[in-house]
Amino acid sequence: MRSIDVIFAIISKSDTMYRNIKVVGFDADDTLWVNEPNYKETERRFISLLKNRMNPDLLPKELYATEMNNLHLYGYGAKSFTLSMIETAVRICGESISGNLIEKIIALGKALMDKPIELLEGVEAVLKKLNGNYRLIIATKGDLLDQERKLKKSGLAGHFHHIEIMSEKNEAQYQNLLKHLDIKPDEFIMIGNSMRSDILPVLEIGSYAIHVPYHTNWEHELTGEPTPQTNRLLSVSAISEVTGIL
Amino acid sequence: MRSIDVIFAIISKSDTMYRNIKVVGFDADDTLWVNEPNYKETERRFISLLKNRMNPDLLPKELYATEMNNLHLYGYGAKSFTLSMIETAVRICGESISGNLIEKIIALGKALMDKPIELLEGVEAVLKKLNGNYRLIIATKGDLLDQERKLKKSGLAGHFHHIEIMSEKNEAQYQNLLKHLDIKPDEFIMIGNSMRSDILPVLEIGSYAIHVPYHTNWEHELTGEPTPQTNRLLSVSAISEVTGIL
Repeated sequence: MRSIDVIFAIISKSDTMYRNIKVVGFDADDTLWVNEPNYKETERRFISLLKNRMNPDLLPKELYATEMNNLHLYGYGAKSFTLSMIETAVRICGESISGNLIEKIIALGKALMDKPIELLEGVEAVLKKLNGNYRLIIATKGDLLDQERKLKKSGLAGHFHHIEIMSEKNEAQYQNLLKHLDIKPDEFIMIGNSMRSDILPVLEIGSYAIHVPYHTNWEHELTGEPTPQTNRLLSVSAISEVTGIL
Repeated sequence: MRSIDVIFAIISKSDTMYRNIKVVGFDADDTLWVNEPNYKETERRFISLLKNRMNPDLLPKELYATEMNNLHLYGYGAKSFTLSMIETAVRICGESISGNLIEKIIALGKALMDKPIELLEGVEAVLKKLNGNYRLIIATKGDLLDQERKLKKSGLAGHFHHIEIMSEKNEAQYQNLLKHLDIKPDEFIMIGNSMRSDILPVLEIGSYAIHVPYHTNWEHELTGEPTPQTNRLLSVSAISEVTGIL
């Protein structure tokens, strides 16, 4: 087959595959806008505050252990992250902790919540193109107020039918989402950067997914598993490529 | 008019008034289950930790000021409350704060989040009676994971079509809720204990409300305003009375 035939074959296959799609779900953090680099930057500042109390190379592991230990109780987001930074600092410094250090950690958390939104390239064009043809929603984890504020600051709110903030992006919660949207699995496609949260559970429930990897990932989002082989999953290198698919 | 006539008059009026209702919204905290007393108890323990550092009579005001100052950034819920307790303690103790004190405050916050659920009397009977005749939802403020966990622990989840966790219970967010539920204002009635969050904004958008006062209220929920005079509002002394109305 000549290469032009291959392209036609792919296009016609796509047309058939996606013809039932009614709702396009977008992950938010690191899919629509920059997020993880802000957490990494906050973490660097936290490490710098404590570098004289503990080997700075060991600190990220110490903080991550606190976060994982608190996840069932705190969930995701900047408030949980702030509480875990404080708890880690107290564990490391013990009685010699200073009020000033705690104040600085609280300020780091507030600055993280108050950060301006930086849209990823091509996002607005994709939303403009898809809007009207599909019902667009955001499906995100994290803190309710935090995510609502980010959406508001992003200027993108008008493109979305609604925002679904989930406490965990697992199969059960995606199934609830479909029930709530009153659609079947083959009427939903999810676009996101996290294999663990945006792709695998969505494929498991029989829906479609487009993976748009991001250069920085939170350790928790890494699966270490091979990419699943299914024609319901496509990977693209930039979100702008989505307009050629849907 | 004899009293029996009055009752008939009320019943027939109710029948007409509520005949369009499709969705019944329930507030959660202090409407379905005990909440504010748990916060008050946590506050008492916090005060007891700091009573040697500041006049205990002034401490609640100091904590409340921190909470109000952080509300725009943190929103509602136990994580926000924990962060505000820590910030208040650092402000009061300054450099002489101890790691042990911070640890105890973090533990108070975690215990608050992990508290068992105590249902208010009559709640289950009301939900059983209304379920089937109406679409029942929860409309609550607070932290996403925290509220989901409470609903799960309550054993009431099966009665509800869905749970709407709002970052603020104001007119705009109730209007979004109606849009999202695809219903008109006169098809919605809200049941709750807070005049400020459950009743006033709901009446403002033209819906119905039933006020079920609770013996303890958070200062922030008090309006100080007189009860609005409208036949779209009913007040009852216990939630069990709702079955005589809807």
